[in-house]
Amino acid sequence: MNIRLYNAQILTMRKEEPVFRGEIWVKNNKIAYITAADKLKDRTEEFAAISWDMELDCRDNLLMPGFKDAHTHSAMTFLRSYVDDVPLQQWLEKYVFPMEKKLSGEDIYHLTKLAVLEYLTSGITSIFEMYLTPDSIAQACIDTGMRCVLTSGLNNFTSSIEQQEEEYLRWNHSDPLISYQLGFHSEYTCSKDLLRRMSQLAHKYRAPVYTHLAETAKEVQECKARYGVSPMVFLYDMGIFAFGGGGYHCVHMSAGDMNIFRQLRLYAITNPASNLKLASGVAPIAEFERRGIPVAIGTDGPASNNCLDMFREMFLLSGLSKVREGDAGSLDAVKVLRMATVDGAKAMQLSHADVLEEGKLADIILIDLRQPNMQPIHNIPKNLVYSGSKSNVCMTMVNGRILYRNGEFFVGESVEDIYAECDRIVKRIINSAAE
Amino acid sequence: MNIRLYNAQILTMRKEEPVFRGEIWVKNNKIAYITAADKLKDRTEEFAAISWDMELDCRDNLLMPGFKDAHTHSAMTFLRSYVDDVPLQQWLEKYVFPMEKKLSGEDIYHLTKLAVLEYLTSGITSIFEMYLTPDSIAQACIDTGMRCVLTSGLNNFTSSIEQQEEEYLRWNHSDPLISYQLGFHSEYTCSKDLLRRMSQLAHKYRAPVYTHLAETAKEVQECKARYGVSPMVFLYDMGIFAFGGGGYHCVHMSAGDMNIFRQLRLYAITNPASNLKLASGVAPIAEFERRGIPVAIGTDGPASNNCLDMFREMFLLSGLSKVREGDAGSLDAVKVLRMATVDGAKAMQLSHADVLEEGKLADIILIDLRQPNMQPIHNIPKNLVYSGSKSNVCMTMVNGRILYRNGEFFVGESVEDIYAECDRIVKRIINSAAE
Repeated sequence: MNIRLYNAQILTMRKEEPVFRGEIWVKNNKIAYITAADKLKDRTEEFAAISWDMELDCRDNLLMPGFKDAHTHSAMTFLRSYVDDVPLQQWLEKYVFPMEKKLSGEDIYHLTKLAVLEYLTSGITSIFEMYLTPDSIAQACIDTGMRCVLTSGLNNFTSSIEQQEEEYLRWNHSDPLISYQLGFHSEYTCSKDLLRRMSQLAHKYRAPVYTHLAETAKEVQECKARYGVSPMVFLYDMGIFAFGGGGYHCVHMSAGDMNIFRQLRLYAITNPASNLKLASGVAPIAEFERRGIPVAIGTDGPASNNCLDMFREMFLLSGLSKVREGDAGSLDAVKVLRMATVDGAKAMQLSHADVLEEGKLADIILIDLRQPNMQPIHNIPKNLVYSGSKSNVCMTMVNGRILYRNGEFFVGESVEDIYAECDRIVKRIINSAAE
Repeated sequence: MNIRLYNAQILTMRKEEPVFRGEIWVKNNKIAYITAADKLKDRTEEFAAISWDMELDCRDNLLMPGFKDAHTHSAMTFLRSYVDDVPLQQWLEKYVFPMEKKLSGEDIYHLTKLAVLEYLTSGITSIFEMYLTPDSIAQACIDTGMRCVLTSGLNNFTSSIEQQEEEYLRWNHSDPLISYQLGFHSEYTCSKDLLRRMSQLAHKYRAPVYTHLAETAKEVQECKARYGVSPMVFLYDMGIFAFGGGGYHCVHMSAGDMNIFRQLRLYAITNPASNLKLASGVAPIAEFERRGIPVAIGTDGPASNNCLDMFREMFLLSGLSKVREGDAGSLDAVKVLRMATVDGAKAMQLSHADVLEEGKLADIILIDLRQPNMQPIHNIPKNLVYSGSKSNVCMTMVNGRILYRNGEFFVGESVEDIYAECDRIVKRIINSAAE
């Protein structure tokens, strides 16, 4: 497919590059050309050589890179609004784990599709996904057209080192939409022996590793009681992060933990809405920034957040940092926007989908600037982070395919069918839980 | 106009009443009938007597009362994304006050209209508005069809007791969309003598009074330095709140301040997004709740927030309370929803627009439950507060008139004309500031 996106304002997210007027030409799954309006005449020859499948008049609205949702558990859509207002450990042990046991791979396939619809409405073009049955998640993303970086939720009860290695080898070479990074659920759900083997796997492939880390004060305390050190120090000592990677949440981090992050260039993948809703705390993002620790943003799962909306996360990240630091200048809009796009891509090892640039993957969104929350236009990045909303997303393109446009989805299946399927699954699980 | 809203789910927000299937019949500006689907046959006679101007199939989506935005400075749209990332006092003194001097009443008329468009997209059906030139604000609301409770921003430099009294008498009897409550900007912008006269005015009309209160720690400290007591105690001693009213923000409140609030039944009108963005702090909402202090919610102005979105405020309110209290059970969705609707109406003295009930004003919104963020439907109030978004608002009706539907506005003027007018104003003011 050759798609021409013309008459647009363009925010490439390349460092310091201001918004300019121009157009983007997409050939198959890549950005073939980006041209400023006043340089278009230099491209007459290239233009003549392309036969367009679609020419989309952007009507002076904004093209920018899609958001990278760097921590998700998509299929937890089935628990949205089912259990809320309880603390994390109780929420996990009393509700989440028992309900999850009732999920089949096929259930996860459909429930993931529901989440994909929601990501698309918020301009999210790739997810970093940890959940049960990675194969069905991958299939749901392939079938809908979503880009997905899988990781393992390995723990003492589900998956195994062998399974992870097999998935790692297979899903890094099977489909252009899917890649796979090594991972495990958390220090507190994995035995020392399992973590030792996890470290060996990381060393075997010289690969980065990702895990839940320092989400709650309790988690850190219990690790200290168990091993005498924080989860970060414990995992560092095991050599798990010898080739980089990152931690999800990173709310309760000591100076020592942060030094390790800095030294190993680990990514802090923050989840502000989830950390509020589960009363876990507010991560010290400005402190990460001062120490040069790179930050990416995730929504976490729809049972803990409960929505999958990068605009909410972006405002929260900036606002919470301002109030935590007592400094209204903390974490300005441009920094947050970089975390939600470029830094997210880097954290997910998707450096070919980070900015809008010729040769990069065509993961592009169109933002409607003609809605009242985006007027007047003094400063587009600030509008995006401080007053922007998923309602401004009027087109989401992944890998050169338009999957969402003006409220309509193009994901190979009707939305109503996906809802009906999920409804059946939810009813079955709840009825069997009641028995 | 007689409008039939049928095939709906209905959340009346009357205490403890669950969501039910049914329809609402609007006659002119009021709710004439609300009927559950299974009781419709009892209403055949009434139905036959009405000739419908419009019958709207709600397709099993949700009708509920519109949101009450209990603290706004609408015309500050002109400064959105113009000055951000600076602390409140500097923001006010260096940017806001000098720029505001350049605003005419006509400017405020147009800039308010821009804000009204945004309120409608978020299902906000009435605003509690404090800004310069109340007459032009009232006119903008009358012309667009918005419900507005005006209050005075009286301070040492703008407005006067005489002007406020004249406005109070006039705007409480001029138009069904407009009412007026007594108010002043804040302790720190009013002399003791002016506040004494404010108190006399309140006593003369036995009327409630509203003001900015305890927004920043600095404000409280400076009042203590000036008068030896907190702003709350100082204003209480002056007798200003003898007939009730409320305070906007209420972030930095002592136990003594809260006791006064409780005793006088004052409303704490909270503005969570603004308090984050200006690094003012997090209001102790759960503490208000424990003490029986009623709470309403406001967006504050679009230069401090920067968006006018009740869904963002609702999630923030609940999430911030959970993390402040270290208790994921704090301030659940139903409580927050009441604050955003019923309690807001009470704070604004709009008790005839609080719930959906026969005889009440027809300020009604329709929420699209067929978007992915609202699926599955385990619990509608939780879906609204935890995963809901302004993108779910598909119809906003104020005083029996549909002002917004499926992304289109019906406000007596084209959206593009409003944008263009505001753009002209913004450019003129910025150019003159640069001179």
